[in-house]
Amino acid sequence: MGFAAQAAPDATKANTLPPKPTVADVLKASKPSDWRALDPENTVYMDLPTGRVIMELAPAFAPATAANIRALVREKYFDGLFIIRSQDGFVVQWGDPDEENPKPFKAAKTVKEEFTVPIRDAAKAGAFTRLKDGDVYAPQVGHVNGFPVARDPARGETWLPHCYGMIGVARDNGYDSGNGSQLYVVIGHAPRHLDRNITVVGRIVHGMPLLSAQPRGTGAAGFYEKPEQRMPIQSVRIAADLPETERSKFEVMRTDSATYQAVVEAQRNRGGPWTKVATGKIDLCNAPIPVREQK
Amino acid sequence: MGFAAQAAPDATKANTLPPKPTVADVLKASKPSDWRALDPENTVYMDLPTGRVIMELAPAFAPATAANIRALVREKYFDGLFIIRSQDGFVVQWGDPDEENPKPFKAAKTVKEEFTVPIRDAAKAGAFTRLKDGDVYAPQVGHVNGFPVARDPARGETWLPHCYGMIGVARDNGYDSGNGSQLYVVIGHAPRHLDRNITVVGRIVHGMPLLSAQPRGTGAAGFYEKPEQRMPIQSVRIAADLPETERSKFEVMRTDSATYQAVVEAQRNRGGPWTKVATGKIDLCNAPIPVREQK
Repeated sequence: MGFAAQAAPDATKANTLPPKPTVADVLKASKPSDWRALDPENTVYMDLPTGRVIMELAPAFAPATAANIRALVREKYFDGLFIIRSQDGFVVQWGDPDEENPKPFKAAKTVKEEFTVPIRDAAKAGAFTRLKDGDVYAPQVGHVNGFPVARDPARGETWLPHCYGMIGVARDNGYDSGNGSQLYVVIGHAPRHLDRNITVVGRIVHGMPLLSAQPRGTGAAGFYEKPEQRMPIQSVRIAADLPETERSKFEVMRTDSATYQAVVEAQRNRGGPWTKVATGKIDLCNAPIPVREQK
Repeated sequence: MGFAAQAAPDATKANTLPPKPTVADVLKASKPSDWRALDPENTVYMDLPTGRVIMELAPAFAPATAANIRALVREKYFDGLFIIRSQDGFVVQWGDPDEENPKPFKAAKTVKEEFTVPIRDAAKAGAFTRLKDGDVYAPQVGHVNGFPVARDPARGETWLPHCYGMIGVARDNGYDSGNGSQLYVVIGHAPRHLDRNITVVGRIVHGMPLLSAQPRGTGAAGFYEKPEQRMPIQSVRIAADLPETERSKFEVMRTDSATYQAVVEAQRNRGGPWTKVATGKIDLCNAPIPVREQK
């Protein structure tokens, strides 16, 4: 008994909605031009004993932070560090667990805050495709180049929101103290109150279950209390630094395509025999951003 | 480097917001009358090899379904069944994995849909405390008796939304096919497009990590493909059926209390040295509903 079963309609219910394309139907009908490859310079592989996590950085929204993360990766800073935190319904975080004798690095120790960026700067990454559905936290929401985006035209500011799978840059109280050496990913309901308080630098495009299903830490804020509870990070690499043959091949749907609008509409208003009420609305963080492996 | 560190302000940032009570501060200052005990007749213990999950049913929002779940529990239907599904960013589900030779039960096989209930019926459970922040999906949102609630006064309808930790009743296409023998819990961003399409019957008040961190299933929709991947359910019991000494003792904050309003306000507008921007808004599913163990 699946609750999204695709079985034939049965006699016990009324008012069956007309069939509509599902997200899967829209993806199946998509054209090659509806997709873009990941940019190797902004694609980060984190190899864990359990498999590969793939992140895509969004430098238009955090140029200095993305550059510092690349520098950290290229000096192999993350190799041998750990998943150090798993807080239920909130975030999983990785980096150096040793606060007393931290692993040294050559990259910058402080990076200017990129909690928001000017809308005109982010426009370099592509068109803003607005969602018409409204948002509790921001005046406008939508997508740019395969990322969820929030913005405030009155202030001329835009930012990446804390949706599921988004990658944030842990910091101390200093606004410039987030240098990218500790990163976290959202694993629960979007903690949007963190938006504009912390730099968000990209998102996980593959391997999310390797992070989200990590056993929860039992220390304060979900930090692991014992070293053996931490999952080791084998290596972190920039895709551009690997030979073509060693790169994972993934594509992201172009969010400024008509096909993506059809994806959103399929999620906003579902039809068919199972659905009773087509919602008519979609929350920014419920809009799927399709990713597929290239054959 | 925790990103919610409570260290002293440092010199590198400007415009420090004035200190404000945190959620933890508000809880510490709460009075005994701000809390209510769980109702033993609506409290369900699911004992797993890894520990106890505690659910609270909300019969005012799903009276027939809650009654059928009680009947299933009292005939020990769930004992020896399994966690059968873990779909990343979506739900974890439990029940009988065997569709061909399902475990029989005496409780009702069909239960009338309780996707919404009349507002006047739900009022029996207590006052509706409205959030002023708006919502993408529903005309009004807020809380009733320790549960998040959405409602549409124009239609006279109210329903439990699919927030993190809420328990839904899996069904086939028939609206009355959800009998409570398969239940799921939301483990990702709230899939609110399911609201009003499925009966939501309560929420997990304790033990959420025992479900949310289950390894993801690799079959379609996150179902486990091999029997050994399923976690067994040792027993499911109604608290009222156990001797007092064997009951877990938990309390839920009264959501119609002034203290709960202070909790929401602490989350809506955070202050202190870490926060740069006090959001000023809260999404229904980001409003914490405090639970504590009685001493």
